[in-house]
Amino acid sequence: MNTFGENIRLTIFGESHGDAIGMVLDGFPAGESIDLEGVREQLSRRAPGSSELATARKEADEPVFLSGILNGLSTGAPICATIRNTDTRSGDYHPEKPRPGHADLTAQIKYRGFSDCRGGGPFSGRLTAAMVAAGAVCMQALGRRGVEVRASIVRIGPVESSNPDFDFAMRKEILDARSTGDSVGGVIECVATGIPAGLGGLMFGGMESRISAALFSIPGVKGVEFGAGFGIAKLRGSQSNDPIRIENGRIFTETNNSGGINGGITNGMPLTLRCAFRPTPSISREQKTVDLIKQENTTLRILGRHDPCIVPRAVPVVESLVAFCIMDALCG
Amino acid sequence: MNTFGENIRLTIFGESHGDAIGMVLDGFPAGESIDLEGVREQLSRRAPGSSELATARKEADEPVFLSGILNGLSTGAPICATIRNTDTRSGDYHPEKPRPGHADLTAQIKYRGFSDCRGGGPFSGRLTAAMVAAGAVCMQALGRRGVEVRASIVRIGPVESSNPDFDFAMRKEILDARSTGDSVGGVIECVATGIPAGLGGLMFGGMESRISAALFSIPGVKGVEFGAGFGIAKLRGSQSNDPIRIENGRIFTETNNSGGINGGITNGMPLTLRCAFRPTPSISREQKTVDLIKQENTTLRILGRHDPCIVPRAVPVVESLVAFCIMDALCG
Amino acid sequence: MNTFGENIRLTIFGESHGDAIGMVLDGFPAGESIDLEGVREQLSRRAPGSSELATARKEADEPVFLSGILNGLSTGAPICATIRNTDTRSGDYHPEKPRPGHADLTAQIKYRGFSDCRGGGPFSGRLTAAMVAAGAVCMQALGRRGVEVRASIVRIGPVESSNPDFDFAMRKEILDARSTGDSVGGVIECVATGIPAGLGGLMFGGMESRISAALFSIPGVKGVEFGAGFGIAKLRGSQSNDPIRIENGRIFTETNNSGGINGGITNGMPLTLRCAFRPTPSISREQKTVDLIKQENTTLRILGRHDPCIVPRAVPVVESLVAFCIMDALCG
Amino acid sequence: MNTFGENIRLTIFGESHGDAIGMVLDGFPAGESIDLEGVREQLSRRAPGSSELATARKEADEPVFLSGILNGLSTGAPICATIRNTDTRSGDYHPEKPRPGHADLTAQIKYRGFSDCRGGGPFSGRLTAAMVAAGAVCMQALGRRGVEVRASIVRIGPVESSNPDFDFAMRKEILDARSTGDSVGGVIECVATGIPAGLGGLMFGGMESRISAALFSIPGVKGVEFGAGFGIAKLRGSQSNDPIRIENGRIFTETNNSGGINGGITNGMPLTLRCAFRPTPSISREQKTVDLIKQENTTLRILGRHDPCIVPRAVPVVESLVAFCIMDALCG
Repeated sequence: MNTFGENIRLTIFGESHGDAIGMVLDGFPAGESIDLEGVREQLSRRAPGSSELATARKEADEPVFLSGILNGLSTGAPICATIRNTDTRSGDYHPEKPRPGHADLTAQIKYRGFSDCRGGGPFSGRLTAAMVAAGAVCMQALGRRGVEVRASIVRIGPVESSNPDFDFAMRKEILDARSTGDSVGGVIECVATGIPAGLGGLMFGGMESRISAALFSIPGVKGVEFGAGFGIAKLRGSQSNDPIRIENGRIFTETNNSGGINGGITNGMPLTLRCAFRPTPSISREQKTVDLIKQENTTLRILGRHDPCIVPRAVPVVESLVAFCIMDALCG
Repeated sequence: MNTFGENIRLTIFGESHGDAIGMVLDGFPAGESIDLEGVREQLSRRAPGSSELATARKEADEPVFLSGILNGLSTGAPICATIRNTDTRSGDYHPEKPRPGHADLTAQIKYRGFSDCRGGGPFSGRLTAAMVAAGAVCMQALGRRGVEVRASIVRIGPVESSNPDFDFAMRKEILDARSTGDSVGGVIECVATGIPAGLGGLMFGGMESRISAALFSIPGVKGVEFGAGFGIAKLRGSQSNDPIRIENGRIFTETNNSGGINGGITNGMPLTLRCAFRPTPSISREQKTVDLIKQENTTLRILGRHDPCIVPRAVPVVESLVAFCIMDALCG
Repeated sequence: MNTFGENIRLTIFGESHGDAIGMVLDGFPAGESIDLEGVREQLSRRAPGSSELATARKEADEPVFLSGILNGLSTGAPICATIRNTDTRSGDYHPEKPRPGHADLTAQIKYRGFSDCRGGGPFSGRLTAAMVAAGAVCMQALGRRGVEVRASIVRIGPVESSNPDFDFAMRKEILDARSTGDSVGGVIECVATGIPAGLGGLMFGGMESRISAALFSIPGVKGVEFGAGFGIAKLRGSQSNDPIRIENGRIFTETNNSGGINGGITNGMPLTLRCAFRPTPSISREQKTVDLIKQENTTLRILGRHDPCIVPRAVPVVESLVAFCIMDALCG
Repeated sequence: MNTFGENIRLTIFGESHGDAIGMVLDGFPAGESIDLEGVREQLSRRAPGSSELATARKEADEPVFLSGILNGLSTGAPICATIRNTDTRSGDYHPEKPRPGHADLTAQIKYRGFSDCRGGGPFSGRLTAAMVAAGAVCMQALGRRGVEVRASIVRIGPVESSNPDFDFAMRKEILDARSTGDSVGGVIECVATGIPAGLGGLMFGGMESRISAALFSIPGVKGVEFGAGFGIAKLRGSQSNDPIRIENGRIFTETNNSGGINGGITNGMPLTLRCAFRPTPSISREQKTVDLIKQENTTLRILGRHDPCIVPRAVPVVESLVAFCIMDALCG
């Protein structure tokens, strides 16, 4: 299921080492200005090779828009953008030895050995570039509607954003993981402001259902929480209930433990969420795995270029999917 | 969006104080034995009035199957079951004073004042009885396929399941909350065993996306995590990667930080997840809210019968939705 | 797939001789007045037993609305209505001898013998009562928006509406079929006026795609055409193109060969369509069939009560599905 | 709604004079051999410029597969193919004067003037090339499963396939239309053999609903009928019911008025259907239209290169969509 959305439908396609990846955005409103330079900027925030913290793989990530835009304005027809895969080195992979923590094994079972597992194939984080292209288009439209979506890192391994000099400590943690042939996980927080009350819907159409389904499609996400999230389980109702107030005719809540959502529907407060990323499964240390051909236990050392931590590059991806979900709900 | 599922489609309908709630299960395979007594048993686990920990509201929760079953076997046609609302006392509610933490305010904005807000209307936890009816049918079919789904409480407020005498401590916490006119949240863990490898799919069709979308439709859920969940963010890759092993031709992983899912696809290990519930928003303590008619600040005391903690009754609800998602994926 | 619709989702459930049939209308706007008497009137137009032209089976067809309506107004939550099956005589059917022209054989293959084939089970025309209940609700809402949907018979067997004294000739044709133990088909035309231009969408979202998919779900429909339909194939472009004109600022076309739809999108002219119904497959004459148990050729005489022509009773069914599709598109 | 299908999802994108058109096929089974030369052959049957009967516009129609195929085999990931628009001459179009019979006017209303109406934009018959690319992939997979899908012309204007020397008469009709600055419509019949019994489903999941929804997405289709179609309305039940027979353990029907479908489910007989095409709306004769800027009546002469009859080029398009629907149902 590579298509998602109720009113706007986002389709993602491509494989890590195929010719190209891309996206189709169907149902996007007509007449929206789309600034390609802005799309490129979002893509560059996700792109590898931009810092010492990321993989050395260099990818132009140049989006090519094939349809749905005329003279810089959306036409109402599906917007398709492709991004070529330019820097692929398939020699680094051993399909017979599934990498622990990756989808190598499950992909081979699911697709009976026909999956393109080079570089993770369709399960690769590479696909998130297509999400960012779609999200950038949505964020521009949201911006004109007063909605802003911003994500940031709140944890890298044991280092929390409340720590003093978080930037330095986070960076140190990542470089330390790399230097030991290891990787590290983290948590991204996302806040969306300016959202009107009333978005979302009953039951499975609730904003939490829609956004979580989107976020869990990002490779490596293992948890999603809204507002006070798992912490809310430790509270009493008298602490977790957000008192409702009115001031100058504007209704708001004094606290925001609900994360801007009640009963699946936005209440006008900032929508807040966090998602947990596992450490990059590709590490250079020797790992236990099996040889699928010989049907025996073996070990694997993953060579090639890999991020010691995908969290920094995932920040615009989280923004993109949240922006898509809000834009989708706004078009209902 | 009250319909959910890819291969089987579950539709939920009803309102807390309307005539009845119910569900339609479309695409459920033909020839499956459906034991109504077993459905009733699951419903009774969710039913109120069964213990001192729950609301005093008594509801028969007798499911009436209208279609899709002949001589105890599913026919392949949609299975519809309704459950009457028998014990409703609408006098306890004040629609002009939205209850903090509830969907009262967002429902009125979304549905422009036409929402049936008596007892929470369609946002009420009452609707989860329809989920349990559907889930019970799925669990019976899964049982015949060797899949077992079991949920349990792992936290009530500050009390964790690792605590000594968890049952007593948990019970004390809930009664303590009640006695102070308050409520308390918690965390439910669910484990599904016997799932074949290969269920789920790419991108938005991943099991985490599907299951989280389902779970966030339960009123009060604010977080969902799989495997090591948010804890995985604190680990190094060398710790979080599950080593792959083979023994007697059977492939498994030594640890299960992935919660039985890689790349959205089941790997044959137990599927594990946790979801966080907020404290019941209905508390008898005075709370700050607004008067929507007078457009001024006011306070509210919620009378009526309410659970001091919905977590115990939510256990079969979590099982039901997880069971539905697995059955749905199995039918692909 | 018993659920249909883009913005409103209609779910139909039930079997001819089960306890009840029904429908769920999800996404219907809040605040719409729903007149139950009007729903009953539409149902009575479809009901059997009302004339000598129809089956003698008597069915109350009393809709029971379980949810989604409060004080006569839609609440925004799913509207569920059920209709009990009261007058079922299952003894008339022989499951081992599939009735020619019916779904008996295909249902048994599809559902491996578990289908409830009594009275046609879920394939029975009985299910159209649930469609009419849903359509009646939609038609009331459409009426307030200036849209009127009206269907009528334009052919019964060889008798066309252009014939002199069509009513008498049509009636004679049906009674003649009955008296010879036979049945007869026909064509229904439907015209919807007051539809704003701009409904529908690209590609598979075109009004013709959506309406035809709905109409072919009516048992016995074998053809659907819009505007000039199959007749347009015989014309030259200079004849079939509808000249566009403007008068007092209102744009219209001089002819309506397009049936009010261009490129799948309504153009503001009346939406016109026709659908062809096969003769009722249930006839009392002896027919060739097979004995599935003995696996040999045999013959069958269908006893019981059957319409010699379903077309008169199908008129409100066609209106209902067209009304649903228009309402669905209006809510986009 | 540019995405269609239950188990396989086909997404179509592009505009006539944009950079490219294309398709994404999601859910297509892994391990299917895809012969690109065969795809090109199907595309060449649809391509313009191949005969004197078609438009002089020359288009390479070279499909570029970007994903989902590795070493000639499908991988299970979405298959994306694009086809560049190479020969576009936008100067021939006058957006302020909507062409009668086209979507020019409805597109401008729907998309508030932002639609790319050059060459018909997303409503152009050009988009059917993407359908053929998808259909060709499906037909290859169907061929390996013993299913063959073949369409042919059965009417061009007044000339029917029962006429003596149909090929000559049809050709003469088309050339005659062209020489008078006119165009002509027609009917295509499609027959699919080798389909197993049991495909399709209840209600809106019936094969007729699914196939008709697909076919009405082809520009210019105004009618779809199955089996005896509209003609069945003229028959008695004793004539239209297909007698069921068994021979050597194989069940079949003596006639095929049902077109291989009963109750929406295939019965193992050939699936037969016909669809009616309107004459190409683009004719060089002067036509009445309005000037949208001046808001007054005017006339229009459409210059440029146009097919006097789209029916010959539509034959592989009909095959493609029918093949997609069958493959989609087979994967359920």
